[in-house]
Amino acid sequence: MTNSIRPNIRAMAGYVPGEQLNDPEIIKLNTNENPYPPSPRVFDAIRAALTSNSLRKYPQPLGDTFRKAAGRVLNVDPDAILIGNGSDDILTILTRAFVPEGGLIASPTPSYILYKSLAEIQGARFEAVRFGSTWAAPTGWPPRADLVFLPNPNSPSGTSLPSFAVHMLANALEPRPLVLDEAYSDFAEWNGRALLSDAPNLIITRTLSKSYALAGIRFGFAIARPEIVRELVKVKDSYNCDVLSLAAATAAIEDQEYFREVRAKIIVTRERMTTELSALGFDVTPSHANFLWCRRTDRPVKPVYEALKQRKILVRYMSYPAGPVGALEGPYDGLRISVGTDAEIDQLLASLRDIL
Amino acid sequence: MTNSIRPNIRAMAGYVPGEQLNDPEIIKLNTNENPYPPSPRVFDAIRAALTSNSLRKYPQPLGDTFRKAAGRVLNVDPDAILIGNGSDDILTILTRAFVPEGGLIASPTPSYILYKSLAEIQGARFEAVRFGSTWAAPTGWPPRADLVFLPNPNSPSGTSLPSFAVHMLANALEPRPLVLDEAYSDFAEWNGRALLSDAPNLIITRTLSKSYALAGIRFGFAIARPEIVRELVKVKDSYNCDVLSLAAATAAIEDQEYFREVRAKIIVTRERMTTELSALGFDVTPSHANFLWCRRTDRPVKPVYEALKQRKILVRYMSYPAGPVGALEGPYDGLRISVGTDAEIDQLLASLRDIL
Repeated sequence: MTNSIRPNIRAMAGYVPGEQLNDPEIIKLNTNENPYPPSPRVFDAIRAALTSNSLRKYPQPLGDTFRKAAGRVLNVDPDAILIGNGSDDILTILTRAFVPEGGLIASPTPSYILYKSLAEIQGARFEAVRFGSTWAAPTGWPPRADLVFLPNPNSPSGTSLPSFAVHMLANALEPRPLVLDEAYSDFAEWNGRALLSDAPNLIITRTLSKSYALAGIRFGFAIARPEIVRELVKVKDSYNCDVLSLAAATAAIEDQEYFREVRAKIIVTRERMTTELSALGFDVTPSHANFLWCRRTDRPVKPVYEALKQRKILVRYMSYPAGPVGALEGPYDGLRISVGTDAEIDQLLASLRDIL
Repeated sequence: MTNSIRPNIRAMAGYVPGEQLNDPEIIKLNTNENPYPPSPRVFDAIRAALTSNSLRKYPQPLGDTFRKAAGRVLNVDPDAILIGNGSDDILTILTRAFVPEGGLIASPTPSYILYKSLAEIQGARFEAVRFGSTWAAPTGWPPRADLVFLPNPNSPSGTSLPSFAVHMLANALEPRPLVLDEAYSDFAEWNGRALLSDAPNLIITRTLSKSYALAGIRFGFAIARPEIVRELVKVKDSYNCDVLSLAAATAAIEDQEYFREVRAKIIVTRERMTTELSALGFDVTPSHANFLWCRRTDRPVKPVYEALKQRKILVRYMSYPAGPVGALEGPYDGLRISVGTDAEIDQLLASLRDIL
């Protein structure tokens, strides 16, 4: 009965999200969730939105209350904001808006593997361009790409390209769009918002899953020129965000004080992890995100991932066909470890000392 | 900057959802929301799910807890269930899974106008086939359609095709898929679930927006052969439903006693509305849904819609290029009026008596 499914779908393996184990004793450092709770205001907002009328009626199609709040906090025009059911929804909308069947999506590698799945679902081609040496900007982008996804900071490396590199790339691609996937930019020193005025083809995507600790409620958004947002609205489902996630997202983004507090804690722990993991012999890439990319030259890291898992500590083992330019040829792998609470990281470090 | 947007997107007008006015005094009978609150268990379930851990962590990718509960209640294999962020999400996933760019989607007319928008977004062609006389099954379906959407009960008519007609259509289309959009089937006397064993190409879509009073939380699902569901999973966003809507949906579908109580009240009011609106001179189509399709031959109905709106009663005025076979040629319009509470309907009827 699946013969009528499009061949591109049948042929694809499908994106596999990070393991979600139900065991509450597991220390989960594999999907870059925030180890701290969301703002207390989020809970208040959800409780306040929990009325018969809000549940039984359709939510705001464009999320105007959120757009106004986010516009104020981020200092952008609310009409420049598109709401999404997680930033995955936004990436899907962008793919459908810009990429025809047989079109071309490009992204750097090693990077977020979902971009390839998005191309496969759309029936488009996909081209990965290797990052430069020590994760410098990739060169040699395919000139005819319909859409370029550039995650910044990047996963798994946690590295951030400088502003001028992103600016130059956006200008070089014009009028074709550059999607700057800023899932982790809240943990970095800069973000692309200031580039929007000089790069009309720049589209920034954000998520509340990481820095706002709301992976469970699925909320992301894009920032782009209002005339682009108007076209993207045609592609999204009419009511793509529900009333409770809209309430949660609005409360979260309005509580910038709490947000800054959590971010500061995560960055302090990240720096401690960098020092301690390096002392344990890992080659740790300096991170601008809420995770660390850890490799070793003295021994394979997959057994380390497995030994940690046996001790109920889950990190992400990742393997790519090639690393950035300058890495040894052949498979390129490592452990991507999310920043946890200090207590979780103490346990991680103790286990690693034991294992190594 | 919008020149890079695909021409099919630029050319389309975009689906316009029913008006959502903020005025709490408005009697809203235009989008077929349930006039009664969701099950009290829904509120309990959302409150119980409102923990730091559930908000900050990713939700179940496939919604296994919901699938088990729905499988038990509906007597289907949980692996035959695909969860969606509203049934719109399911319809989008189906379009992307089955319809290539330049492919063909067919649906009956007059019917849900979103189907055409789904074709436009996908860059596919769309063919509408007129319903037969008195809303009988359409004939002359395009034999090469990649996907046929058949809403049953249909909107705006509220009519339901008999089981054998759906069965015959499914068999005639095989192996190509027939999507039976059962958004309103809970208000009808039968649904297509029993056909699944004999029609392997049948895909049923459901929503919790109407009969379970959960339009605000965005939850729908599909029932299809597990091998089809496995392919559809590749197309959906990894985490397309959030933790609170999953909790709400599970609690709602488990409370079948409450569900039956609400449904019975709506059907009683629907029958009363049919009688009273007919007495007021409307040509009311017997409905198997939670709304009524009301036309008049003695005067245009658009001014009636407008007069009701001035009195803060919102119904849906709908106009189509043609009606079912047998209707007068030319534009075909009417008022689609949702079943409200008895108090709301008393006000509607009083206002109509005043206006007419």
